[in-house]
Amino acid sequence: PAVPRGRGCSGCRDVVPTCERYAVQRLPFARLADRDVAFFERLMPGRVVAGEEEVKPFNVDWLKSVRGCSQLVLKPQTTTEVSQVLRYCYEKNLAVNPQGGNTGLVGGSVPVFDEIILSTALMNQVISFDKVSGILVCQAGCVLERLNEYVEEQGFVMPLDLGAKGSCHIGGNVATNAGGLRLLRYGSLRGTVLGLEVVLADGSALDCLTSLRKDNTGYDLKQLFIGSEGTLGVITAVSILCPQKPKAVNVAFLGCQSFSKVLETFTTCRAMLGEILSAYEFMDEKCMELVERHLKLSSPVADSPFYVLIETSGSNSSHDEEKLNNFLEQAMASGLVTDGTVATDDKKIKASHLRERITEALTHEGYVYKYDVSLPVGKLYDLVADMRARLGQSAKSVVGYGHLGDGNLHLNITAESYSHSLLDAIEPFVYEWTARCSGSISAEHGLGFKKKQFIQYSKPREAVVLMQQFKAMLDPKGILNPYKTLPSAP
Amino acid sequence: PAVPRGRGCSGCRDVVPTCERYAVQRLPFARLADRDVAFFERLMPGRVVAGEEEVKPFNVDWLKSVRGCSQLVLKPQTTTEVSQVLRYCYEKNLAVNPQGGNTGLVGGSVPVFDEIILSTALMNQVISFDKVSGILVCQAGCVLERLNEYVEEQGFVMPLDLGAKGSCHIGGNVATNAGGLRLLRYGSLRGTVLGLEVVLADGSALDCLTSLRKDNTGYDLKQLFIGSEGTLGVITAVSILCPQKPKAVNVAFLGCQSFSKVLETFTTCRAMLGEILSAYEFMDEKCMELVERHLKLSSPVADSPFYVLIETSGSNSSHDEEKLNNFLEQAMASGLVTDGTVATDDKKIKASHLRERITEALTHEGYVYKYDVSLPVGKLYDLVADMRARLGQSAKSVVGYGHLGDGNLHLNITAESYSHSLLDAIEPFVYEWTARCSGSISAEHGLGFKKKQFIQYSKPREAVVLMQQFKAMLDPKGILNPYKTLPSAP
Repeated sequence: PAVPRGRGCSGCRDVVPTCERYAVQRLPFARLADRDVAFFERLMPGRVVAGEEEVKPFNVDWLKSVRGCSQLVLKPQTTTEVSQVLRYCYEKNLAVNPQGGNTGLVGGSVPVFDEIILSTALMNQVISFDKVSGILVCQAGCVLERLNEYVEEQGFVMPLDLGAKGSCHIGGNVATNAGGLRLLRYGSLRGTVLGLEVVLADGSALDCLTSLRKDNTGYDLKQLFIGSEGTLGVITAVSILCPQKPKAVNVAFLGCQSFSKVLETFTTCRAMLGEILSAYEFMDEKCMELVERHLKLSSPVADSPFYVLIETSGSNSSHDEEKLNNFLEQAMASGLVTDGTVATDDKKIKASHLRERITEALTHEGYVYKYDVSLPVGKLYDLVADMRARLGQSAKSVVGYGHLGDGNLHLNITAESYSHSLLDAIEPFVYEWTARCSGSISAEHGLGFKKKQFIQYSKPREAVVLMQQFKAMLDPKGILNPYKTLPSAP
Repeated sequence: PAVPRGRGCSGCRDVVPTCERYAVQRLPFARLADRDVAFFERLMPGRVVAGEEEVKPFNVDWLKSVRGCSQLVLKPQTTTEVSQVLRYCYEKNLAVNPQGGNTGLVGGSVPVFDEIILSTALMNQVISFDKVSGILVCQAGCVLERLNEYVEEQGFVMPLDLGAKGSCHIGGNVATNAGGLRLLRYGSLRGTVLGLEVVLADGSALDCLTSLRKDNTGYDLKQLFIGSEGTLGVITAVSILCPQKPKAVNVAFLGCQSFSKVLETFTTCRAMLGEILSAYEFMDEKCMELVERHLKLSSPVADSPFYVLIETSGSNSSHDEEKLNNFLEQAMASGLVTDGTVATDDKKIKASHLRERITEALTHEGYVYKYDVSLPVGKLYDLVADMRARLGQSAKSVVGYGHLGDGNLHLNITAESYSHSLLDAIEPFVYEWTARCSGSISAEHGLGFKKKQFIQYSKPREAVVLMQQFKAMLDPKGILNPYKTLPSAP
């Protein structure tokens, strides 16, 4: 798997507890008592994890950037068990941290203090799959890659794909409104998720698990839970529309001499490839260096300041190849692209790995400051250049890559270890820069713990107040994933 | 325009007032006083309509099935004016009926009693259009067809298309989460609407008018207003992602001997046309009869029990034609289709008109009982057959057509005039039938006034309670589009 699972990580003890590093105040939730553990043991014998060593990996995110001090992990198998757990916690005023594959990048998936971890790891059953419509209904803890394999056998694909697919859970994907590589083609989860089953803070279950492409009967409640990062309810099952598996997938890897050529290539590509274009990803030469150095991968094209990965997915391989070759010819003839290769099956995998494994390569550098912003495409790379100039020698590397087709930049800054002063040089500069362009300070990663105080750079005060009202209405005691998504009261 | 605008309709006086026909109780809102009218006149001189004759067309829906008795229509031009109107109404406890093009089919767009009509007719300005990204930002009162013409000139199309396009407003489309003909290809408005500006019941404006494809900063508030039928806020501006205008559009019109052949043809078509399939619509022979009789249109293929309209949209006309011809050859050779034609440019328009104008043809029959359900595709036409058998001679005609690709059936029953006993024979039978198949009793039309009492056939009690809590939170006095969407208290 491209992304190591939290549970496999080493050196958790080295991670400074979040509450210390960020000087957070614990809210007045109840503290876990022996009778609570006994209750859970009766409810789900053998699926309660309480030993310090066993709980540790659930307390640390896989970036090793935040660390909670929970003493208890619960692994329900059914929605009823989730209901029972939450009803109990709600009554006892115990805080709960819902956790999927623990692959989140903003500190949303691990506790800040001693919240009970509610893991979906054992909720991994497919409930149904309709081969005519391509509608999959499954439990929240199914791993994305397993689901993709399952539906591929039946001629379909999952409508989303991301680097963490080997570990991430579909419930977590929905809770964070994950984007990823296929968004350009299949749209966001807000369109492809057809139904959800959610357990609310007080333990009541909300069954919106329909499997209909169209349903205009009242307000679309499920939308509120998509992207709410476990703060409004725990997603226990998902109904999702899978597109047909494309008969032909082609990958092209290109080198460009400047970012403006990357942009021009995109416009040309969109016009010439049209409906078969399924991904347009870019990375800068710094990314390539890191992937080569840390993962021993090698570039399929000559060294260039920028690289572009294009993927097409279509129903007729000869039509698709013709379109792709026509495009490549024109892009090279007009000087937009200086080197390019259309990947064969074997190379295809390598080319997409290059792009998918940048996140992993970055972790080898030390501490990573991760930013994931939406910007008007024309200005996308200016932020990287400005940041590089601003930080100079104080950062180890400043790299930019991302989903250009969606206007989504991943800006990453690495250093040997975490430092307050470097953070102060980056923030709020990066957020102010983004806000000036009317961008989003979190395109797809969410706000979690690390970005919640910056929400005002992308949302007006009235909107934040309304979000707080929704939170208060759905979770009046605030037990669900506290300290996340919404800013703390001033 | 395919759909006559409410304002042009004749015979409004013949329509029985809704409150009489349905024996509704007026809620204790304030009654309009002269000082209120004077206030609005000062606020927007010349844009306050108060004469009985002038107000009349705004009181009746274009189906002439419901009629309110409002005495006042307000036509704001700006968001600030909408804010001022709502702040005043909220203070004075005056009920408000937001109205776009008044093309709704469930009685959601006209008042039930004397609600003040807030029309978006003069909020028809395009705010911005980005030619690189295809993102359009405009006021809520822009007519869909005008917007489509506007973006087409710049190489894009609107992501939705429906029969009422000549009259309907984009704000109304979003407020009702309109589906239509292009949903199969471009997905629902929940994915293509990027931002909204909304004025809440108390007059406060909520600015979520961003133009980003990806933004995961907090809860996606705009989703709550999409499809809420003006009951939670008044949409004043919309940011929407327009796909590129396809270089080639092809239409095929087919005749099938049975509904099971319509289904098999769909499976074959989806596999062979893949990413270029942009619509798969079906209609039964009764629909064709009505369109021929009332609108003097003629079928481009030999008489058949079922007709299918296929549209492809792609970037390469020779590739697309090859795919379509291959498909047609196979469909005819295997006997799925008995007659078929690929339409030339001229015929294209006629073929799509046949499908688009069924709604209009139906209104010539007298009173129309309209049902718009989502069902598993395999069972889609069984409902029409069962209904036809059930009603026998008591209905003039029972017809079925719809967006097969989305599992969406439009079931229409006509009679000379409205009758309680015929309605009782249809309802709740149609809803019970749909609920047994886990379908939706309103796929795209919404609940409005006419369907709100039936929400429980598609939504569990807990969901309805939660919707009522949202309504109470956002509109505590209940002044926005009262008597609509949510069931009245028992």
